[in-house]
Amino acid sequence: MPKIVNHDSRRIQLAEAAWRIIRSKGIDEVSVRNVAEEAGMSLGSLRHYFATHSELLAFSMRLVSDRVESRLRSMEWNGGPRQAMEAIIAELVPLDDDRLAECQVWFAFAGKAIADPSLGAMLREVHDSLHALFRQLTDDLIRLDLTKPGIDAELEAKRMHAMVDGLVVHGVTCPERLTGERIKEVVSYHLDRILR
Amino acid sequence: MPKIVNHDSRRIQLAEAAWRIIRSKGIDEVSVRNVAEEAGMSLGSLRHYFATHSELLAFSMRLVSDRVESRLRSMEWNGGPRQAMEAIIAELVPLDDDRLAECQVWFAFAGKAIADPSLGAMLREVHDSLHALFRQLTDDLIRLDLTKPGIDAELEAKRMHAMVDGLVVHGVTCPERLTGERIKEVVSYHLDRILR
Repeated sequence: MPKIVNHDSRRIQLAEAAWRIIRSKGIDEVSVRNVAEEAGMSLGSLRHYFATHSELLAFSMRLVSDRVESRLRSMEWNGGPRQAMEAIIAELVPLDDDRLAECQVWFAFAGKAIADPSLGAMLREVHDSLHALFRQLTDDLIRLDLTKPGIDAELEAKRMHAMVDGLVVHGVTCPERLTGERIKEVVSYHLDRILR
Repeated sequence: MPKIVNHDSRRIQLAEAAWRIIRSKGIDEVSVRNVAEEAGMSLGSLRHYFATHSELLAFSMRLVSDRVESRLRSMEWNGGPRQAMEAIIAELVPLDDDRLAECQVWFAFAGKAIADPSLGAMLREVHDSLHALFRQLTDDLIRLDLTKPGIDAELEAKRMHAMVDGLVVHGVTCPERLTGERIKEVVSYHLDRILR
């Protein structure tokens, strides 16, 4: 079905144009007109892929979580549970330019979601699946008897999720203070503190 | 100098009108025209207090950190260092409607700052002073020999700061999941894990 593949790849190309505008000019500048121009496409062609501005925005936001999810799914496990935990968190935080771009775009959407219920619902959906992931990872570590005494699975999952998202915020707002190296050190320190 | 007081209180009144617009319609809707209307003031009067849109935005953002800072300064200490730490963190996270409003407004500005260097510089300034606060609190706990063995002051300060800002993000984006009670539980759990 080459036509469908082409349709999807055009939508991704347009969403990536939206990402570039978000990063350089801000999310308020993401109009169908500006995105068409950035992607080198006519407004009429864009309308073929996205009927509305909201649809374009929703797809552009979803592309961030889809990319993270697809990297997490295709991960190859070598090393123990600690290495797995580090590798998973590494996919969520701005350790390199690609992931910094994703985090910036995500963050811009999160700011906009405060007064936009449909973006807010999408954010909460991703929040819930990340929370479930952190809870499952914590349960695994406890089950394998790798954690220090006194760990509470639910509070630990909430704390780790908050720490990771806080590192995203700091990496996005203060990239020269919270470099990739610094972020890795904090994550590693956290794992030292919870694991035997 | 009653005239100056009046000038300041008018600026605050306008900034609070900007906050209401950010929370209900989004930060893109904060124009001088919309803010004047929301505050029940003429555009000409507004121009007397804020010459430009950027000045109004900067003042509205600064009002969040000024309010937090003034609450922190006027805190009365009773109880030990752990209670102090909990009380300080309580001023930074969305535990009630007023603080949720501040966090939402802050978060909207942070999203906008990605493509706005002057807002970004203000964010980094506040980040640095909060980091210094967390570092000082951690140093105090270590000096008083209240921490568990193996605490690294700098990494602990970075981790706690990230956790607190992550709780702000989750409290803002998912208020029905991260209620004030849940946030307090996570903070208390964190302090249990680092203190003897």
